[in-house]
Amino acid sequence: MEQARPDATSCAAMLELLAVPGIPLVEAGDDLAALLEAALGRAHLELRDGDVVVVASKVVSRSEGRFFDLARVSPSARAVEIARQTAKDPHMVELILRETERVSRAAPNVLIVRHRLGFVSANAGIDCSNAVPANAPPESGPWALLLPEDPDASAERIRAKLHESFSAAIGVVISDSFGRPFRFGTVGAAIGVAGIPALWDRRGEKDLFGRTLEATITALADQVAAAADLVAGQAAEGRAAVIVRGLSFPVGEHSARELLRPADQDLYL
Amino acid sequence: MEQARPDATSCAAMLELLAVPGIPLVEAGDDLAALLEAALGRAHLELRDGDVVVVASKVVSRSEGRFFDLARVSPSARAVEIARQTAKDPHMVELILRETERVSRAAPNVLIVRHRLGFVSANAGIDCSNAVPANAPPESGPWALLLPEDPDASAERIRAKLHESFSAAIGVVISDSFGRPFRFGTVGAAIGVAGIPALWDRRGEKDLFGRTLEATITALADQVAAAADLVAGQAAEGRAAVIVRGLSFPVGEHSARELLRPADQDLYL
Repeated sequence: MEQARPDATSCAAMLELLAVPGIPLVEAGDDLAALLEAALGRAHLELRDGDVVVVASKVVSRSEGRFFDLARVSPSARAVEIARQTAKDPHMVELILRETERVSRAAPNVLIVRHRLGFVSANAGIDCSNAVPANAPPESGPWALLLPEDPDASAERIRAKLHESFSAAIGVVISDSFGRPFRFGTVGAAIGVAGIPALWDRRGEKDLFGRTLEATITALADQVAAAADLVAGQAAEGRAAVIVRGLSFPVGEHSARELLRPADQDLYL
Repeated sequence: MEQARPDATSCAAMLELLAVPGIPLVEAGDDLAALLEAALGRAHLELRDGDVVVVASKVVSRSEGRFFDLARVSPSARAVEIARQTAKDPHMVELILRETERVSRAAPNVLIVRHRLGFVSANAGIDCSNAVPANAPPESGPWALLLPEDPDASAERIRAKLHESFSAAIGVVISDSFGRPFRFGTVGAAIGVAGIPALWDRRGEKDLFGRTLEATITALADQVAAAADLVAGQAAEGRAAVIVRGLSFPVGEHSARELLRPADQDLYL
């Protein structure tokens, strides 16, 4: 499993996914990279070249203090109207709209928006699970947790620190769970990326008959996030981070924005 | 890594993905399960309870002889019209329409349809890579390969045979590459499923604070397909099958149709 620093992304013949055990409940102001480093140390896990550390957006949000007490959020007239259409809590809708560039679809129990970060997702990724801060007063809440302020930057902070600690050329993906328009069930998707290419462009390659491959840009970072979700879950196990080991990719500067289809190419606007 | 036959699907703390080496180029009429079994034997790989074998739709299609010589396909008037709208080959559009229940979006270089199998995908999953049959006459083609006739049934045939050979409670997923409306890049998705639940319903579980989890039906089979795609690629490596090892799920009767949002719940029709 020795990794070179290859020039081109390539397929792995074998891949391992390892949950990072023993990450404590993350609170506002915690240095997440330091918590990860300590947990890796306690588990005797050393990062290697080519490893990708997939971190759940929820723990990044908690470290950034993105908690909101819904009772203290004042809904605008527009939030009240959309709450009526969707049968959702107006305080929650207000928070969603503050994170929203454009509403994509509103229907009973459904509010899908183009997030200020550019992706399309339900409820702007705002969640009420595992959303209570350590210092929550007894009568406060319910609490909601917004997505990280700038997930690419969060990923890069973690990458830089772990790169320094382990002297390894690694990637970091901040993952969140996304629904899909045509399919049931959520899948892990990349909302922040550092080190690893978000897209893997294979258009130059040939098939077994020497014919150039079609449609061969794969969403590498999304597939890494989906794979990690098989290991991480998102609940009481509290598995906040997963190592994906065995990929080969050229480490470089990348962004989850590489994955975003701009509105003018969106046929489902 | 011993697997019980658990009552409930659960997270893996570690997952391994292994490409099955040495599967020959599959041709029409080949017994794919027998080819897989032989390749596993040569590689000294034994399937275990809980393993999921992910098979690329392309090799299933080849084994089922789903080849079409585009030059011998007569385009209908409707195919000619849509070919004009999309700047696609009318012969190819004709094949796509034969597999189509309803056109979802047609635009220059884009033809997205609801496939007769119920999922929404570009070009009805028809591909011209690795699409040449062994007995292709020299002046024939170009060739196109349609998706398997009934991918759930194909998955079940493979599952039954491998279950018998290895006495292991396994799952089988037939995977294809799908684009997404809002995001660039393709991801692996399940078009056929046997043994493993396509969806993993976690709504009964609690978060770290005892609050019931929201939005917690994950697309297990799609995430398995996406993970396998990291290993398999789809090109000259010819990696036709990947073992996903380390999941826990109750083996039962399932279908990729579990993943399909019906048209009446589709806000992006």
